[in-house]
Amino acid sequence: MSSHQHSSFHITSSQLHLNWSKSLTPVMTVPSGSEITFDLRDGGNLQIRPDNAATSLSDFDFSQADPAQGPIYIDTAEPGDVLKIEFLDLVPGSYGWTAIFPGFGLLSDEFPDPVLKIWDLSPSKKTATFKSGIEVPVRPFLGIVGVAPAVEGELSTIPPYAKSGGNMDCRDLSRKGSTLYLPVNVPGALFSCGDGHAAQGDGEVCGTAIETTMKVRLRLTVEKRSLRQERGYAIQCPHFVTPPPTKEDVEARMAAESKGEYAVLGIHEDMREATRMAVRGMIDWLEAEKGLTRVEAYMLASVGAGLKFAEVVDMPNFGVVCSMPLSVFVE
Amino acid sequence: MSSHQHSSFHITSSQLHLNWSKSLTPVMTVPSGSEITFDLRDGGNLQIRPDNAATSLSDFDFSQADPAQGPIYIDTAEPGDVLKIEFLDLVPGSYGWTAIFPGFGLLSDEFPDPVLKIWDLSPSKKTATFKSGIEVPVRPFLGIVGVAPAVEGELSTIPPYAKSGGNMDCRDLSRKGSTLYLPVNVPGALFSCGDGHAAQGDGEVCGTAIETTMKVRLRLTVEKRSLRQERGYAIQCPHFVTPPPTKEDVEARMAAESKGEYAVLGIHEDMREATRMAVRGMIDWLEAEKGLTRVEAYMLASVGAGLKFAEVVDMPNFGVVCSMPLSVFVE
Repeated sequence: MSSHQHSSFHITSSQLHLNWSKSLTPVMTVPSGSEITFDLRDGGNLQIRPDNAATSLSDFDFSQADPAQGPIYIDTAEPGDVLKIEFLDLVPGSYGWTAIFPGFGLLSDEFPDPVLKIWDLSPSKKTATFKSGIEVPVRPFLGIVGVAPAVEGELSTIPPYAKSGGNMDCRDLSRKGSTLYLPVNVPGALFSCGDGHAAQGDGEVCGTAIETTMKVRLRLTVEKRSLRQERGYAIQCPHFVTPPPTKEDVEARMAAESKGEYAVLGIHEDMREATRMAVRGMIDWLEAEKGLTRVEAYMLASVGAGLKFAEVVDMPNFGVVCSMPLSVFVE
Repeated sequence: MSSHQHSSFHITSSQLHLNWSKSLTPVMTVPSGSEITFDLRDGGNLQIRPDNAATSLSDFDFSQADPAQGPIYIDTAEPGDVLKIEFLDLVPGSYGWTAIFPGFGLLSDEFPDPVLKIWDLSPSKKTATFKSGIEVPVRPFLGIVGVAPAVEGELSTIPPYAKSGGNMDCRDLSRKGSTLYLPVNVPGALFSCGDGHAAQGDGEVCGTAIETTMKVRLRLTVEKRSLRQERGYAIQCPHFVTPPPTKEDVEARMAAESKGEYAVLGIHEDMREATRMAVRGMIDWLEAEKGLTRVEAYMLASVGAGLKFAEVVDMPNFGVVCSMPLSVFVE
């Protein structure tokens, strides 16, 4: 698609903002249908690098975290329209990191200490080495994809929002070939993205994925309100379509599933506690049967585990499954 | 495995109980390692059939629902042991049903009226016809797999329990080839199962799956407490292992994924509300774009949708994805 008429639009590494707001000045205006390339910082805003790994967590400034890059004004977008985002290409940087930050993560009460792991992301490898004998498939996507909210004032870039997206951390939604639909809340939409992940489990349970810089190419197209309205509905939150699998996707999927999965079913009357029980059980198993430390197990779940519902109806108890593909264990 | 030494153990359609209790009298005692066959009633305890479809919901007696069949005393099982359950074969009956019961289901406040759908489950077909142009893959498993609880008194068979399993409604846990591990709470374990599902989505969102009678063969083996204790842990809830995919599994998976998925990301500070938003968004889409009624859409999500977490850490908001394989739409 490099011959696309609008492929010359580019967002640089320094064009970023640290809050969502409809008052931000756009860095660029583009026509609907434009292709845009991004040179994205990581979710840590370049504060964590292999050369400063020993001190980067204690020095980490959360007010600089999760930068969104843009915003881009799409010239025909109006409130009530839908912005269609097609993810055309995503290339992770040469290294990544996974961290446990005190007070952040699904089991933050059980993991009080800061921990950092640096990953080597060789472009020639389809997996990233967690430790000897454990390989995590690389599957790049963007944590942050959003538009400006309708509300006055500034919103943090850390949580996602139903009406405007943002830090959705959804591993299927923004990978190559996926198409995302977001409500447009303000004139021009004010689109931004960021927070490249080389890989992430469902839930991102320890609070971080394989965080990395990323070079991204995507296409932004406005769907006018009337297109959906005439069919009787408006989207109330992000909708997306994942693509038919490519040959490469099928091979990756077959490799990932080749040994089956180990799984733990958490059951509790509090949905979040059911989720915590499932993840804790997975950590117990990884520690006892695979010789990981609890910190390693928590990080491995965060970058490679599945996390889904068994049942949400057999009251009073909910069931949530945490699963680990056994193919990550290569020895 | 028909030559297995213990393959003659059989639980009939009438050997059932309607509560979990350690005081139940076992219907059979078997040695560890035994294979057992079951002739299972459906989760409605045969109250709903094609010939009484018009009146079966208004006459439905919930006190007879979700029968568990057994219990079986495994002769060396003691509290602190683990019961290993290998699912060897599962054959659905000739018909199934999906119902919306008032007051039951994730969106029960939005679907107040009783509705019943009867499915034809021809053994020669790999899919079940929802309506013209919509086919749901058949993927049989057991909703109920459990052992007696340690507590005194009786527990309902409708919810699942962390320490003893039961109505877990987890579509990967009990399908052919899966191996489940449950804590043993009482002497003999007192194993029972039931609630055959020909297919179910993650979450079983409308409250029912494709409910059906089922002929099942499984193997029960006691793992003595010492086996896991020497590795330093005990299971606190159900653990399970899914098998490496067979050639048939791979083909079914590739067929299911061949067109990609449509998905909705619910985002809310209440995890259950995020889940409801995702399912409601899927229903909106199925109604607007695929011409289903809202009741049909809710039922189709219940028997065929995925339901998993995007993120559980970007506070204050959780993200939950409801997804539908586009391959269910065959026209």
